[in-house]
Amino acid sequence: MKPTLAYHDVTIRVRYAETDQMGVVYHSNFLIWFEVGRVELMRAQGFDYKRMEIEDDCHLVVAEVHCRYHHPARYDELIIVRTRIVDAKNRMLKFGYEVFRQEDQKLLATGDTTHISCRRDGRVTHFPEKYKAEFLAIVAALSERKAE
Amino acid sequence: MKPTLAYHDVTIRVRYAETDQMGVVYHSNFLIWFEVGRVELMRAQGFDYKRMEIEDDCHLVVAEVHCRYHHPARYDELIIVRTRIVDAKNRMLKFGYEVFRQEDQKLLATGDTTHISCRRDGRVTHFPEKYKAEFLAIVAALSERKAE
Amino acid sequence: MKPTLAYHDVTIRVRYAETDQMGVVYHSNFLIWFEVGRVELMRAQGFDYKRMEIEDDCHLVVAEVHCRYHHPARYDELIIVRTRIVDAKNRMLKFGYEVFRQEDQKLLATGDTTHISCRRDGRVTHFPEKYKAEFLAIVAALSERKAE
Amino acid sequence: MKPTLAYHDVTIRVRYAETDQMGVVYHSNFLIWFEVGRVELMRAQGFDYKRMEIEDDCHLVVAEVHCRYHHPARYDELIIVRTRIVDAKNRMLKFGYEVFRQEDQKLLATGDTTHISCRRDGRVTHFPEKYKAEFLAIVAALSERKAE
Repeated sequence: MKPTLAYHDVTIRVRYAETDQMGVVYHSNFLIWFEVGRVELMRAQGFDYKRMEIEDDCHLVVAEVHCRYHHPARYDELIIVRTRIVDAKNRMLKFGYEVFRQEDQKLLATGDTTHISCRRDGRVTHFPEKYKAEFLAIVAALSERKAE
Repeated sequence: MKPTLAYHDVTIRVRYAETDQMGVVYHSNFLIWFEVGRVELMRAQGFDYKRMEIEDDCHLVVAEVHCRYHHPARYDELIIVRTRIVDAKNRMLKFGYEVFRQEDQKLLATGDTTHISCRRDGRVTHFPEKYKAEFLAIVAALSERKAE
Repeated sequence: MKPTLAYHDVTIRVRYAETDQMGVVYHSNFLIWFEVGRVELMRAQGFDYKRMEIEDDCHLVVAEVHCRYHHPARYDELIIVRTRIVDAKNRMLKFGYEVFRQEDQKLLATGDTTHISCRRDGRVTHFPEKYKAEFLAIVAALSERKAE
Repeated sequence: MKPTLAYHDVTIRVRYAETDQMGVVYHSNFLIWFEVGRVELMRAQGFDYKRMEIEDDCHLVVAEVHCRYHHPARYDELIIVRTRIVDAKNRMLKFGYEVFRQEDQKLLATGDTTHISCRRDGRVTHFPEKYKAEFLAIVAALSERKAE
C-alpha cells in the first residue's frame, strides 16, 4: 500500500459542452468532476476502480450527494478537484471535495458523496477484505493527522 | 395568481444516454430531472422561468444541492418528479423533490436545491416584487396547510 | 404488426442543462433527441427496445451519425423529432430525422443514424427473425409509397 | 503565427458518466471529445477560442457533424483525439478527427465537423482578418504537404 495521501488533486479543463446559457458551468457537472476526483484519488492510492468492478464485483454506488456552489466555473478554465476520503466503514465510503479555479486558487464549490459497496446485481455487500483494510487504514491515518 | 399547489408532478421517460455501465441512471442526471421538476412547478404556478431570465433579468442560480438515492432508475422507465417549494426569502428559493418510479410508485430518490436570485452578471439581487409576493404566499400557504 | 408508419413524431421540451453559453442547445444533444425519436418510433410500431436488449440480446449499436444544423434550438422550446426508418438489412437499420420547433414548424436540423445489430458482447449478429421481417416490411411499404 | 501543425493530439480519460448500459461510451460523447480536440488544436496553433468569442465576437457555430464508429471506447481508457483543419473559407472552418485508444493505437472513430463563423446574435459573419489569414495559411500549408 502506498503512503496515505491527505488528499489528491486532479486538474480538469472546462468543456464548452459543460456550460449553460447563464455562461457558467451547469451545476450537475460538478458531480461528474467529483467522480473524476475520487477515481484519480483511488488510482494515486493504488486502487484501480475499473478492476474493482470487473475483478472483485465491487461497485461504489452513490447513495448521497451534497454540493455547495460558492462561485461559478467558466468555459476553458483549469479546475482543480481536491478529493479526500472522509469516512470508511465495512460497506460505506465517503469522499469530500473542494473545487478550485487553478488560476487564483479561488474556492468554487465544496461537496461530499457517500457510496455503498454493491455487487453488479445491486445487492449491498461488504468491501472485499483487501480494500476494506486499506480504506480503514486511510481513515485512521487521516484521523491521527487531524488529532495532532 | 393560480391557487397554490402543494406540489407538482412531472413525468420523464429515462433516456438511454442517461444510463451508465452499471445499467442504471448515472446519479448526476437526477439533478437535471430536478431542474425539469422545478421549471414545470413554476409553469403550473403561473411563472415562466424563460421570461424571468429574459424580461426580469432574474436568474435562479443553484447555491446548494442535496440528493439521497434510495433505489436505481433504469432505462425506459417512466419517472415522476414531485416538486414543492419548501422555503422562500427575499432572494432565496428552496425546492424539495421526490422521485418515483411510475409503475409501482417506488420512491427512488429525495433531494432539495437552494437557489439565489442573481442578475445576468452574477450579482445577487432581491426577487422582483411580483415574484417575491407570490413565492412568499406559496410558502405561507404551505405552512398553514402543514399546521392544520 | 401495426400498420406501417411513414414517420413518428415525438415532442421534447428543451432542458436548461442542454443549453450552452452561446444561449442555444449544444449540438451533441440533438443525437440524444434522435435516440428518443427512434425509440418512440419503434414503440409506436410495436417494438419495445428495452425488451429487444433484455429478451433477444439484440442491441442497435450506432455505427454512423450525420447531422446538419439549420437553426438553433433554445431553452424551454417544444421540439418535434420526426423519425422514419430509411433502410433495413439483415443486420443494419437506418433512421432519418427531422427536428422542428413546434411553435412555427421551423426545421432546425436533419440527420440520420445507422445501426448494426450486436449482442451484448459486441459481436455483430443478424436481427432475430421476428424483427427482421417487420423491419424489411416497413422499408418495403415505405418504398412503395414513395414509388406511388 | 506558430508553424503549422499537420494535426494535434489530445488525450482524454473516459469518465464513468460517459458510459451507457451497453458498457461502452455513449456515442454522442464523441462529439464532445471532438470539441476538446479542436479547441486544443487551436490553442496549440496560437488561437484562444475563449478570446475569439469574447474579444472578437467570433463564434464557431456547428453547422454539420459526421461520425463513424469503428470500435467502442470503454470506461477509464485513455483516448487520443487527433484533430486537423481540413478546410477553411471566409466564414467556414472544417475539422477532421480520428479517435484512437492510446494503449494499442486502435482506431475507434473518425469524423468531421463544419463550423460557420457567427456573432453572438447568431448572424453569419466573415472571420476577423487576423484569423482568416491564418486559417487559410494552415489549409494552404496542409495542401502543399499533401501534394508533395
